[in-house]
Amino acid sequence: MKQHVHQIAVHTHGRRLYDVTAQVCDWAAAAGMATGLLTVYIQHTSASLLINENYDSDVVADLERFFKRLVPDGDPLFEHTIEGPDDMPAHVRTALTQTHLSIPLVNGRPALGTWQGVFLYEHRHAPAQRKLLLHLIGE
Amino acid sequence: MKQHVHQIAVHTHGRRLYDVTAQVCDWAAAAGMATGLLTVYIQHTSASLLINENYDSDVVADLERFFKRLVPDGDPLFEHTIEGPDDMPAHVRTALTQTHLSIPLVNGRPALGTWQGVFLYEHRHAPAQRKLLLHLIGE
Amino acid sequence: MKQHVHQIAVHTHGRRLYDVTAQVCDWAAAAGMATGLLTVYIQHTSASLLINENYDSDVVADLERFFKRLVPDGDPLFEHTIEGPDDMPAHVRTALTQTHLSIPLVNGRPALGTWQGVFLYEHRHAPAQRKLLLHLIGE
Repeated sequence: MKQHVHQIAVHTHGRRLYDVTAQVCDWAAAAGMATGLLTVYIQHTSASLLINENYDSDVVADLERFFKRLVPDGDPLFEHTIEGPDDMPAHVRTALTQTHLSIPLVNGRPALGTWQGVFLYEHRHAPAQRKLLLHLIGE
Repeated sequence: MKQHVHQIAVHTHGRRLYDVTAQVCDWAAAAGMATGLLTVYIQHTSASLLINENYDSDVVADLERFFKRLVPDGDPLFEHTIEGPDDMPAHVRTALTQTHLSIPLVNGRPALGTWQGVFLYEHRHAPAQRKLLLHLIGE
Repeated sequence: MKQHVHQIAVHTHGRRLYDVTAQVCDWAAAAGMATGLLTVYIQHTSASLLINENYDSDVVADLERFFKRLVPDGDPLFEHTIEGPDDMPAHVRTALTQTHLSIPLVNGRPALGTWQGVFLYEHRHAPAQRKLLLHLIGE
């Protein structure tokens, strides 16, 4: 049994979902393991992770429409406003989605379903550099 | 240290939570490990996973009532409508719940709490065959 | 490769987020592993887990404001009311957040980002004793 750890930096430029499927899966496949468990971890609290459909780009656009309506920027409900009107909504969106994903590795590759992609969900409007930590255990 | 992988097919017939606790836990217990980590992964984007109360069936019915109100079918907000009025809501519900669950295995069994059950949450109305991937590592 | 398992009891006294970062991370660091995967699992369905900002206490207060508005106590939508007006909302809040967290262990410590803390989110108003199960695998 072996482990591998790797860090990926993703430069984001505005609020939307960024497809990181290839970066994540190619790294995991390159480890040369047959079977294992891949964990993707994001070291931030205003950006998150998500597995969802990556075939039709309408889907990720609609996901953003939904979250924009559910957690509006500048909502007077929030008292934590010193970092801007999109900061507290970013923390709520992070709470409602994922900070980590675990995907079994089968036959040498992460066993995503046919329509599944791995996304980094940037919730802030300003450009940012986001760090993902990948952990793989298996043999 | 060893690993086991197993795929389960669940035939769903309409939107609701399906209790898969016994299927998942019996497979994990049959591996004969004392301690480990069980990961349940669903290879779909319009059905998801959830751990919640499985004692009183009112709870899962109320969960569905809540999600139906939060993410209504046919919501004019959505542009991705070609797969039906329940498709985009299904992707949003999946984003708000889980695609993977990790449960420690202790004393040979997944260490669920007294009232916890493992559920597949089908978000589409049409019948479907859903695939769950189970991964167990431990000894 | 080795595994360690540990149970933590957290006494809660009312609905709010409880910072358990030190308890969780100190235990994991004490295992003396260089690299691994830490899983935190909560054995309850009306309390949950969350990774979010732990620097400014306004953030966790605003998170609670958001969930209180999204899932109001005593909502007439719910039929499961026998355990009190905050019980079914607690199950919904649990479904919308996390029952388990997985965090890579790098250089001997869980690799949390600079502003990330690990929280137990108590959703009931009455005092409770909540059990967290920690699982660590690595070497």
